[in-house]
Amino acid sequence: MGDPAGIGPEVVAKSIIRPEVKRICVPLVFGSIGIFRQVIKKYARGYRLNRVYSIEEMDTSGKVINILHCTDLDYKKVKIGKINKTSGSMAATCLVYVVQFALAQEIDGIVTAPLSKKGLRLAGYDFPGQTEMIAFLTASTKFGMMFIRDDLKAMLVTTHLPISIVSKKVNPRTVFEKIELTDKVLRFLFGIRKPRIGVCALNPHSGEEGLFGKEEKKGILPAIRKAQRKKINVSGPCAADSLFNPERSAMFDCIIAMYHDQGLIPMKIKGLGSSVNLTAGVPIIRTSPDFGTALDIAGKGKADPEGMVRAISLAARLARSSKNLEKVWFK
Amino acid sequence: MGDPAGIGPEVVAKSIIRPEVKRICVPLVFGSIGIFRQVIKKYARGYRLNRVYSIEEMDTSGKVINILHCTDLDYKKVKIGKINKTSGSMAATCLVYVVQFALAQEIDGIVTAPLSKKGLRLAGYDFPGQTEMIAFLTASTKFGMMFIRDDLKAMLVTTHLPISIVSKKVNPRTVFEKIELTDKVLRFLFGIRKPRIGVCALNPHSGEEGLFGKEEKKGILPAIRKAQRKKINVSGPCAADSLFNPERSAMFDCIIAMYHDQGLIPMKIKGLGSSVNLTAGVPIIRTSPDFGTALDIAGKGKADPEGMVRAISLAARLARSSKNLEKVWFK
Repeated sequence: MGDPAGIGPEVVAKSIIRPEVKRICVPLVFGSIGIFRQVIKKYARGYRLNRVYSIEEMDTSGKVINILHCTDLDYKKVKIGKINKTSGSMAATCLVYVVQFALAQEIDGIVTAPLSKKGLRLAGYDFPGQTEMIAFLTASTKFGMMFIRDDLKAMLVTTHLPISIVSKKVNPRTVFEKIELTDKVLRFLFGIRKPRIGVCALNPHSGEEGLFGKEEKKGILPAIRKAQRKKINVSGPCAADSLFNPERSAMFDCIIAMYHDQGLIPMKIKGLGSSVNLTAGVPIIRTSPDFGTALDIAGKGKADPEGMVRAISLAARLARSSKNLEKVWFK
Repeated sequence: MGDPAGIGPEVVAKSIIRPEVKRICVPLVFGSIGIFRQVIKKYARGYRLNRVYSIEEMDTSGKVINILHCTDLDYKKVKIGKINKTSGSMAATCLVYVVQFALAQEIDGIVTAPLSKKGLRLAGYDFPGQTEMIAFLTASTKFGMMFIRDDLKAMLVTTHLPISIVSKKVNPRTVFEKIELTDKVLRFLFGIRKPRIGVCALNPHSGEEGLFGKEEKKGILPAIRKAQRKKINVSGPCAADSLFNPERSAMFDCIIAMYHDQGLIPMKIKGLGSSVNLTAGVPIIRTSPDFGTALDIAGKGKADPEGMVRAISLAARLARSSKNLEKVWFK
């Protein structure tokens, strides 16, 4: 359900009752009964909650929302629009639960609603985001954030880092890892036979032959060469402002960006919710919409569930096509 | 003409013979006769060159391209597609000439074709780009690069810098300077009475309350507060991937980006040539298209002059509306 102080529960409720969602999967909410009782009244009128203790108890008929109650923290302490320890702890607990169920293969995939890193911290979890927490919970070390839109995919080399230390994390090892991971995702999850991968430069003008930075030559190019030797169809580094130009990006199945905003600015330019975040390199399917807790509009009924619907659709599609993820990543 | 090893002369020739360009200005090429003789044969058939030594000698009738011959360097030493000392020196010399003419108010504005920083270096000019060289030649210290598209404008706080040192250059002084400059540009050059300015964060998620960087609180916010006290309508810092979302960016007349790719990725996403670069804070009007020397397609006739046409149109429009630039910037 994400952090209940934000728009998470609202977009969950609004999206899982959509006919197009029900057609492709059987949604199970990992959340708090108290929170969802309120949410259903506002956003899923006519539905009733069915609390389950195991997957077998799920009711797939009619107007039912199945929920696995993960946390007995007092839902009345949640203040809509304001992250606190309770809301953060609830979000974290639900995430821990859902990952356990996915690892046990009780469920086929996870879609996470937004939570706040501040909430995680207040709850005692020191992760920069859900991606990193899920990687930890699944003991994954070579993982990555990939964003998927109809016309474009992007993988990030670094994620939730201050800009000031990004360049320290761009080196032949980190870049190669992400190229290899991207190639696997495209082939095994998306079924693309010969994926074409483009790699962004870190610096403006691709470093302008070393005048504006050396990372292109020292960090990125060696990784590309190594990947090419392993028969991965990858090219770059290319100045990011050129590579994300649609004429250029259309030549690639995925573009690898060196840092968060470099990949997310172009991925989000078609509107919030237009791209889906996929966690690559973990032994479970996990997607999420590309927006945050949106505290400013929480509780107002204004949150658009479209991005959540897209995230669920992608998770369902990938869950169908990709079995044995462990084998995919670690073979 | 830009660097003659690149597509500069080609896009100059193709664009200045366009009827829509001739309607709004009288173009004068600052270049090399030898280079343009060749270029005209290929891209401006039926036109003849008119070499002028002063503005009075310009021929504004019929199929004439007026040229001020700036450099006697041997044009035969220019290798199309390969920057060398000759091509770089030619480009630099033309730029020095044209700036002199603009400062003397012999011409109303400058539009520069792309040159290469490598060429500038080979020619002995140690500037990261034309913008910085023009600022030097006009003794301007508070200048900035602004990009202009029909639906969006963006100003850069830092320009041609390695990512690794960007954060060192984001501080209350540099950010305030750019906010103030942006406000002036919007009011005095574009005639917007009450400009609305949005400011990007430097770090992902706007630093996530300090977890991914402190520059938002220490560098950007104080600058915004100071500008607000001076009655400038400015807000932020806002996560760049949200702010450049069209729904959000439509609320602003200009967005201030902290570094090159942060501003240029979204500005170029509608295709190369769609946005025009304006040098703000110098006592002359100077624009340029948003593309580079494009050595890979130089000499092949494939270069699209559309961006150059846009740059000329904007320069002509601004030259008409803005007199006394010195007064604008330094009052």
